[in-house]
Amino acid sequence: MCRLIGLGLFALPSLTLAAEGMWLLSQAAALSSRLHQAGLEIDPSSLDDLKAPPLGAIVSLGEDSGSFLSPQGLVVTAHHVVLDSLQYNSRPGKNYLADGFFAETLADELPAAPGSHIDVLEEVRDVTQAMERRANERMSGLERDARIAANRKALIAACEQQPGRRCEVKEDFGGARYRLLREFEIKDVRLVYAPPSGVGYFGGETDDWMWPRHTGDFSFYRAYVAPDGSSAPNARGNVPYRPKVWLKVARRDLKAGDFVMVAGFPQHTHRLRTAAEARFTFETYSPSAEASLSTYIAQLDRAIAAHPDAALDYASVMRDAHIALKKIQGQIAGADRLALVHRKTAEEKVYRDWIAADSNRQRYAAAAAALDRVLVDDQRAQMNDLVLDTLDRCQLLQAARLLYRWAKEREKRDAERAEGYQDRDRPAFEDKLAQIERQFTPDVDRTLLAAALDSYRTSNARDVRFLEKLDAIGLDRAYAMSRLAETSVRLSWLNRPISAFETSADPFISLAVVLYPGDRARERAAQDRRGRAQAARSLYLRGLLAFAAEHGREIYPDADGSLRLTYGSVTGRAVDGETWTPFTSAEGLVARNTGKGEFAAPERMIDRIGAKDYGSYASSALRTLPVDFLSDLDVSGGNSGSATLNARGEFVGVVFDVSLDGVISDWVFEPSINRTIHVDSRFMAWVMDRVDGAQRLLEEMQWAE
Amino acid sequence: MCRLIGLGLFALPSLTLAAEGMWLLSQAAALSSRLHQAGLEIDPSSLDDLKAPPLGAIVSLGEDSGSFLSPQGLVVTAHHVVLDSLQYNSRPGKNYLADGFFAETLADELPAAPGSHIDVLEEVRDVTQAMERRANERMSGLERDARIAANRKALIAACEQQPGRRCEVKEDFGGARYRLLREFEIKDVRLVYAPPSGVGYFGGETDDWMWPRHTGDFSFYRAYVAPDGSSAPNARGNVPYRPKVWLKVARRDLKAGDFVMVAGFPQHTHRLRTAAEARFTFETYSPSAEASLSTYIAQLDRAIAAHPDAALDYASVMRDAHIALKKIQGQIAGADRLALVHRKTAEEKVYRDWIAADSNRQRYAAAAAALDRVLVDDQRAQMNDLVLDTLDRCQLLQAARLLYRWAKEREKRDAERAEGYQDRDRPAFEDKLAQIERQFTPDVDRTLLAAALDSYRTSNARDVRFLEKLDAIGLDRAYAMSRLAETSVRLSWLNRPISAFETSADPFISLAVVLYPGDRARERAAQDRRGRAQAARSLYLRGLLAFAAEHGREIYPDADGSLRLTYGSVTGRAVDGETWTPFTSAEGLVARNTGKGEFAAPERMIDRIGAKDYGSYASSALRTLPVDFLSDLDVSGGNSGSATLNARGEFVGVVFDVSLDGVISDWVFEPSINRTIHVDSRFMAWVMDRVDGAQRLLEEMQWAE
Repeated sequence: MCRLIGLGLFALPSLTLAAEGMWLLSQAAALSSRLHQAGLEIDPSSLDDLKAPPLGAIVSLGEDSGSFLSPQGLVVTAHHVVLDSLQYNSRPGKNYLADGFFAETLADELPAAPGSHIDVLEEVRDVTQAMERRANERMSGLERDARIAANRKALIAACEQQPGRRCEVKEDFGGARYRLLREFEIKDVRLVYAPPSGVGYFGGETDDWMWPRHTGDFSFYRAYVAPDGSSAPNARGNVPYRPKVWLKVARRDLKAGDFVMVAGFPQHTHRLRTAAEARFTFETYSPSAEASLSTYIAQLDRAIAAHPDAALDYASVMRDAHIALKKIQGQIAGADRLALVHRKTAEEKVYRDWIAADSNRQRYAAAAAALDRVLVDDQRAQMNDLVLDTLDRCQLLQAARLLYRWAKEREKRDAERAEGYQDRDRPAFEDKLAQIERQFTPDVDRTLLAAALDSYRTSNARDVRFLEKLDAIGLDRAYAMSRLAETSVRLSWLNRPISAFETSADPFISLAVVLYPGDRARERAAQDRRGRAQAARSLYLRGLLAFAAEHGREIYPDADGSLRLTYGSVTGRAVDGETWTPFTSAEGLVARNTGKGEFAAPERMIDRIGAKDYGSYASSALRTLPVDFLSDLDVSGGNSGSATLNARGEFVGVVFDVSLDGVISDWVFEPSINRTIHVDSRFMAWVMDRVDGAQRLLEEMQWAE
Repeated sequence: MCRLIGLGLFALPSLTLAAEGMWLLSQAAALSSRLHQAGLEIDPSSLDDLKAPPLGAIVSLGEDSGSFLSPQGLVVTAHHVVLDSLQYNSRPGKNYLADGFFAETLADELPAAPGSHIDVLEEVRDVTQAMERRANERMSGLERDARIAANRKALIAACEQQPGRRCEVKEDFGGARYRLLREFEIKDVRLVYAPPSGVGYFGGETDDWMWPRHTGDFSFYRAYVAPDGSSAPNARGNVPYRPKVWLKVARRDLKAGDFVMVAGFPQHTHRLRTAAEARFTFETYSPSAEASLSTYIAQLDRAIAAHPDAALDYASVMRDAHIALKKIQGQIAGADRLALVHRKTAEEKVYRDWIAADSNRQRYAAAAAALDRVLVDDQRAQMNDLVLDTLDRCQLLQAARLLYRWAKEREKRDAERAEGYQDRDRPAFEDKLAQIERQFTPDVDRTLLAAALDSYRTSNARDVRFLEKLDAIGLDRAYAMSRLAETSVRLSWLNRPISAFETSADPFISLAVVLYPGDRARERAAQDRRGRAQAARSLYLRGLLAFAAEHGREIYPDADGSLRLTYGSVTGRAVDGETWTPFTSAEGLVARNTGKGEFAAPERMIDRIGAKDYGSYASSALRTLPVDFLSDLDVSGGNSGSATLNARGEFVGVVFDVSLDGVISDWVFEPSINRTIHVDSRFMAWVMDRVDGAQRLLEEMQWAE
C-alpha cells in the first residue's frame, strides 16, 4: 500500500499521520484505501467529480469558501465572511452587523458588498506542457518569467472565450506542474441571513483562535443569475441560480471520533519552502513585520481616537490588522515552540542527502544551489518592501498609483498588459476603487501617510524624487487639493490618457507619476527573481517528487486558493494539564454570556436555552445542543466558511477558525496540537428556527424539524 | 451539625460548599467535623496552637507568606516574593534575577532588600471591649475614629513593651470584633536560594493567572537574629534564628483528590461588602482605575523607551503595574461573568428581609441605612482620589510629602501621632525613603509627573495653589534644583524642623508644604467617613452574625493580612469544552520550552528531564515528575508563598497564583471555577538536587533523596 505522508514528516516517521494533507481532488484515487480506513462511507472516486455531490456543491467566494445547500442557489459560509456585506448595507438606525439580518422573502435579499462573487468550479485540467512552451534554461529570469506569463495569459484567454467563465492557472510544486481551472463566475450575490453579532461573533476578538468557543459563525448568501442562466451583475430581473448539485443536511448524530472532511479553498501554505526560507521568515522578516503592524495599529488607534466618526469606516481595516498581528505573533510563537527552523533543516537534509547520494541527481543539486542563491536576493527585496509598502496604507496615494499604472497598461494591447490590468480585470478594478469610499476618512488617511513616511524616509530603497515633490506640496495641501476622495473622480481617471496624468495638478496623481519608474524597476527586478526562482524551484521539487515516489509516498502541493480536500475526525486535544473536549454546548454558552461587550448573546437565545427548548436539534450522544466542535483537519486561511461533511458526504457544519497553536500550520502541520474549529450544523438550524425565525430557509434546505 | 457556609452563598444553597472560607484559627474547633470529613488526619484543635506544628511554622513576610522548613530558620516562599531582593543584590555582571542565586554556605547568604522582615506570630487575643472603650454612638465620625485610633494605639503600645515585638489590632466584621496580634519581628532576612528566572518565572507574564502552568515559583530566605536570640538589624555577628516549630516535608505521594490546606496571610477581601459597594466598584470605580492604569503603563513604557538605562530600575514597578492591570481587568470580567452585582443584591435582600421581619431588629435597619449613606460620600471621595493619587507616581514629590508629614507629626507626642509616623515606624519609614534609589530615574520620574498633571489639572479636587507654584517653578527646573534624588539628602530631612521645610528652596519640599493643608483636610474628611462607617458597619455585621447564628451557620471575617486557614483538595476543573487536569509534568514543561524569551528553561534542566533523571522525586501515581498542581482552596493576594500542607500537616508545595477566573474571588468565591496554583514540593526538591546543586539545603531540611 502506498504510504501517505506530508513533507513535514519525512524526518519524523514515528508521528501519527492522522489528518495532514490539503489534497487535490485528483489525488482522491490514491487516497482511496486510506479514506475508507478513516471511515468514509461513499465511493472515494466520487470526490473527484465536480458534477456530483458532494464536491460539486463547493464554491469559492474569492478569499473564502462556501457551499450550495439548496437547489435555489443558497450558499452557506462563515459569518465573518459576510462582514463586508453587513457593513455595506448598514445605515444609521440599521446596524446589521450588531443586529443581524434576515430577508423574510426573496425580494428582501440585499446585494452583497461590491466585488462579491461566487465561483463554481467546472473543470480542472493539467497544462504543464502548455505552460512550459518556449521556456528554457538559458533564458534570463526576466525572459523566463515573461514567457511563462505569456503562456498563462494565452491559456486563460482561450479558456475565457466561453461567456461568464473565469479561468486561472495554478502552479504546483513551484512550477513542476500546472493546472488550469475554469469557473462559472456568479456576480450577483445577495445577503440572505446573518445572525446578530452576539451569535456570529460571540466572544469577539478575545476568542479569536481560542477554544473553548461558543460562536455561531455562519451566514447565508444566495447566488443570482440572469433569467437565461448566464452570469450577470446585480439586476432587478435576475433570478436565483439553480446549481446542479447541493449538499444534503445530515440527520445522523455527529459525535466524537466520527469521520469528517472539509472541501474548500485554502489560501497559501508554505510547507514546501526551504529551511533557509523558514529561517529568514521567522528570524528576520516576521519580527520586523510584527513591529510594523503594531506601530500601524497604534497609529490607526490614535487617528480614530481623534476622529470618532471614522470608527465605523475603519472597523474592518482595524479588525484585519488585529487579526494579522495576532496571526504573525502566533506564527512566531508556534515556530519557536515547534523548533520549526531546526525541524525543516533536519528534514531538508534527508532529501539533499538523497540527491548527493547519486550522481544522476546532479541537476537537482544544481537546482538547490540556484534556488538558495535567488532566495538571498529575494530576502533583501522583501525587507525593503516591508517599508515601501507602508505607503499603500494611504488610500489616496494607492488609488493614484493603481490608476496611473492602469493608464500605462492601457497603452499596450490587452494580451500584453500586466496581470490584473487586462480588460477582463476592469470590473474588479472598479470595485476596488469604489470601495475606498466605505473605509476612508481624509484625516485618518493623512495621519497614516505621515506615519508611514517616518520609516520610508530612512529606507535605503526610498524614492528621493517622490520625497522632494511631496515635501514641496506639503501633506495638508495635498489632501486639501486632491479630489481623489470622490469616488466619481477616482473612477473617471480610469478613462484618461497618460498625458492627463502627467499634467495633472492633483497632488496624488502627480506623486504617482513620480513613483512610477521606481515602481516598475522594482517590479522588473522581482520578475527576474521570480523567473530564476521558478526555474530552480520547479526542478528542485521535481526532485522531491521523485524522492517521494521512490519511497512510495504521496505528497500534496502547497495550498494556493484552489479546491482541496482534507479529512480526519471530530476530536479534542490533550496537552499537559489541559484537555479540550470536542464539543461545546448551549449551557456552556450561557455560562460565558455576560450580556455585555463581546459576550452578549441575544436575550431570546438565552431564554430558549434556559427553557432547554432544543427540540430535535439536540445531539442524542451529547444529550444537549452542541454549539461548536473541534477536528484534526488540515485547513488554512481561505477555508473560512468551508462546509464540513460527514462520512456520507452530508453537511454537518462550517469551518470558521483554527486554534492559535495552529496558525503556524501554514508552515508545518503538527497533528498533536493543530485543531480546526467548526460551528455545528445543529446549532445553526436551532438558531434559525428558535431564535431568528428563519424557517423559510430551513424549509428550503429541507431542514425543518 | 453546624452548617458551614460563606456569606456569598446565603442565597444559593444548592452550590457545593467545598473549599470556601479563610478561617481564623480560633474557628478550627467549630470546623472540626468538617475537617475530618474532608480528610484531615491530625487533631483539628492543633490548628489553633501557635506553639505547635503545623501552624507554628507559618510566618508573614509583610505582604506575603512563608514557613519555616528547618530548625535553622530556613523559610520557603514564592520566587516572585523575593524578586526585590534579587534585584537589590544584582550588579552589572551579576544578574541574580535571570541566573538565580544560591549561597553555597551560610556565609554566602545575602541581605534581603531593605525593609524585608519575617514576622513570627506569637499570640492572638480578642480586644473588642478595649477597642470600644469610651466610644459611643453620639460621637461624630471624626471623634469616633479618633477614639478608636487612640484605643488601638494604647493597646499596641502596651503590647510592644516587650522587646522585638510588633503588635497589630485587626478589625473583624467591620469592627464588630477586634483581635490583637503579637509578632516577633525578625529584621535580618537573608537570601539563600532562588532558581533562575527560566524556572522561577517560566512562562512569564504570558502565564500569569494561567493554567496549564510550569513555573517553579519558589525560593528560600533565612531568618537571622542577634546571638542572644533577640531581633536585630542585619549585622555580621547575627546567627540563624532557631524556630520552635518547622514543617516536616511530606514523603507520601500527593495525588488528585487528596486533602490539602493552606495557612498564610491573605490580604484584603471584600466578601462582606454591600451590594451598593459592589455596584460602585464594578460599574464606576474599576473601569476608571483600569483606564488610569493603562495610561500609566503606556506613559512608563514611553518614558523607559526614551531611557533604556531605566529599564532595570523600573522593572518591578512595571511588573506590579501590569499585574494590577491584568487583575483589575480580570475582576471586571469576573464580576460580569458571575453577575456579581445581581448576586450580591439578591443575597443582601435575604438578610435585609430578615431584619425587616422583626421589629427587635430595628437597630440593624438603622445601621443599614446609615451605612448606605456614608458609602455614597465615600464613593465621591474615591473617584477624586483616583486622580489625586496619580501625583504619587512621582517619587520625589511623594518623598517630600512623606517627609513634611513626618516633621509635622514629630511635633506631637509619640502617642498622638498618626499611625505610620510614630517612633516605632521610623525604620520602615527610612527603608521606604531609601528604596527610592533602586527604582528611580529622574527623567522617567519627571515624565510621569508631567503625565499625572494632565488629569490632575482638570480634577474638581485639584489644589490650585500647588499648580500655581509648580507652574511658577517649571518642571525641568524643579528636577534640576531638587536634591531629593540623593538618598542621604532624603534621609537627612527626617531630622529637620518644620521651619526648615517652610523656608526650603527645594522645589519638591516647598510643593509638599503647599499641598499639606489640602492633604490634611482630605484626611480629616476620610477619618470622619471612616468613623461613621465603622459605627454603621459594625452594627450591620453584628446583625449578620446574629442572622448566621440563628440559621446555624459559621461565617468568617474578610481577609486582612492576618493568619488564616483554608482547606479543600487537589483538584482540576471542568468547564464546557475544556478540562484542567490537576498536575502538570516535567515532560509538559519541555513541550512548552522554546529556549527563548519567557519560555527559556535552563538547558541543564531540559537535559535532566530528557534523561528522565527524576530519582525518587517522581510521583508513583503520576509516573512522572509533577511540576505544578491545582486545588480548590480559597486564597487571595498575600497568600503568595504560603505553604501547602497535606492531611498530616506536612509540606507539599507553595501557593503562587490563582487562575484568572479566580481574581474576582476577592469579592465572591465560585467553587466551580476558582482554582489555586501551587508549585509541587517534589519539583522544588528535584530542581535543587538535579539542576541547581543545592544539596546543602535539602540536607538541612532532611529532604535529600
